[in-house]
Amino acid sequence: MTADDEVPIYDPEILKKFHLGERHETLKQDESLCVRPLYMSDYGRGFLELLGELTQVGNISEEQFQEQFNLMKNSHGTYYCTVIIDTIKDRVVGASTLLMERKFIRGCAWRARLEDVVVSPDYRGKQLGKCIVEILTNLGKALGAYKMTLDCNDKMLTFYNQLGYAKEPGNANVLSIRFPAPTLEPKL
Amino acid sequence: MTADDEVPIYDPEILKKFHLGERHETLKQDESLCVRPLYMSDYGRGFLELLGELTQVGNISEEQFQEQFNLMKNSHGTYYCTVIIDTIKDRVVGASTLLMERKFIRGCAWRARLEDVVVSPDYRGKQLGKCIVEILTNLGKALGAYKMTLDCNDKMLTFYNQLGYAKEPGNANVLSIRFPAPTLEPKL
Ligand SMILES: CC(C)(COP(=O)(O)OP(=O)(O)OC[C@H]1O[C@@H](n2cnc3c(N)ncnc32)[C@H](O)[C@@H]1OP(=O)(O)O)[C@@H](O)C(=O)NCCC(=O)NCCS
Ligand SMILES: CC(C)(COP(=O)(O)OP(=O)(O)OC[C@H]1O[C@@H](n2cnc3c(N)ncnc32)[C@H](O)[C@@H]1OP(=O)(O)O)[C@@H](O)C(=O)NCCC(=O)NCCS
Repeated sequence: MTADDEVPIYDPEILKKFHLGERHETLKQDESLCVRPLYMSDYGRGFLELLGELTQVGNISEEQFQEQFNLMKNSHGTYYCTVIIDTIKDRVVGASTLLMERKFIRGCAWRARLEDVVVSPDYRGKQLGKCIVEILTNLGKALGAYKMTLDCNDKMLTFYNQLGYAKEPGNANVLSIRFPAPTLEPKL
Repeated sequence: MTADDEVPIYDPEILKKFHLGERHETLKQDESLCVRPLYMSDYGRGFLELLGELTQVGNISEEQFQEQFNLMKNSHGTYYCTVIIDTIKDRVVGASTLLMERKFIRGCAWRARLEDVVVSPDYRGKQLGKCIVEILTNLGKALGAYKMTLDCNDKMLTFYNQLGYAKEPGNANVLSIRFPAPTLEPKL
């Protein structure tokens, strides 16, 4: 690992500034756990294996990972990939991304989205899912979003309802088109 | 207007390369209309007034607009704000944004989203809404997204269903939280 690998995908001071992370009830109860931005070195801490609990990940080389990481990092406050670390085992045990979308509407507003929430099977049922959702929701709010949304399947409705997310009556549909054989990079 | 104002928010060659825009049936029928990336100078062509048909826009100064435009432009292939121009009146008459989100899942995939679709009231019913949705959907596909989604209210379901967008059974919920008094920029 080089010093470069310890690069965070966003400034860790942002979480501290808003008192997110270190003061969360769940983390106070277990000092071996911490919440922080994704580091480039988390490739070696099982970050992609954890995402594999959520959906297909495929074989991503360390170089590919680092390239995507840098593009996200340099996207002007768009991607807040955040992880829960078991500091004793030195493994990523939970993760989610806050995506901040720039808009022209509403006075050049931000719209926040919660993406790819996942907790390692061995660590489920300990409120870690709740913890990361709460932290990223508070971060979206603190960064000035006018709303924060997420897409979910029917089974997850109860989980998110408990955390304050609700369908807006008459305005809660996700429509999609799936494309075959996507490529990894734009074919330009 | 300075030469700088003619800056496009993304490279217009991308639309040409994928044969999007110029060959669309709707545009062939009316030569005064064209589809292109948002220009910085579209502030003066009624772009924000058009967005006002969709939702609140508020007072956005030209400087604020330009700042947001540049941040989007410099976000590494994330924002594809696209407009339909009436070239005779020199006005923006339709608009939508394709948002390309970088993921780690699925081999560092792209997820595409369709945002802020709007057609000027005087130009509705001429297939322009359909035209811009089709072009941006094809762009999302051409850029390599594995799926493209949009959020919509119940009234718009038929419109998007006709264009190939559908709810995935058991997996089509948008949940949200609205935050009071958002700020224009992150409070960092
Ligand atoms: C969903 C997931 C993140 C939950 O993580 P977790 O750490 O086990 O959840 P928590 O311990 O924080 O649960 C908080 C509360 O939600 C409840 N809950 C957890 N998973 C739930 C589910 N699938 N459905 C309904 N309620 C659920 C818990 O019972 C708990 O309730 P309580 O506070 O009354 O005890 C985890 O199960 C996971 O990674 N699943 C696979 C990936 C996935 O489906 N992600 C969601 C994508 S939309
Ligand atoms: C929705 C909107 C973009 C449609 O634009 P448009 O240019 O008038 O639509 P088109 O002419 O391309 O319509 C294409 C087809 O969709 C149908 N359609 C248009 N608006 C529709 C609506 N609100 N509900 C159902 N069908 C609709 C048309 O009848 C037409 O059908 P046809 O091909 O069988 O004749 C426009 O009405 C608008 O800007 N509305 C306000 C903003 C808004 O609600 N945007 C959507 C945000 S999710």
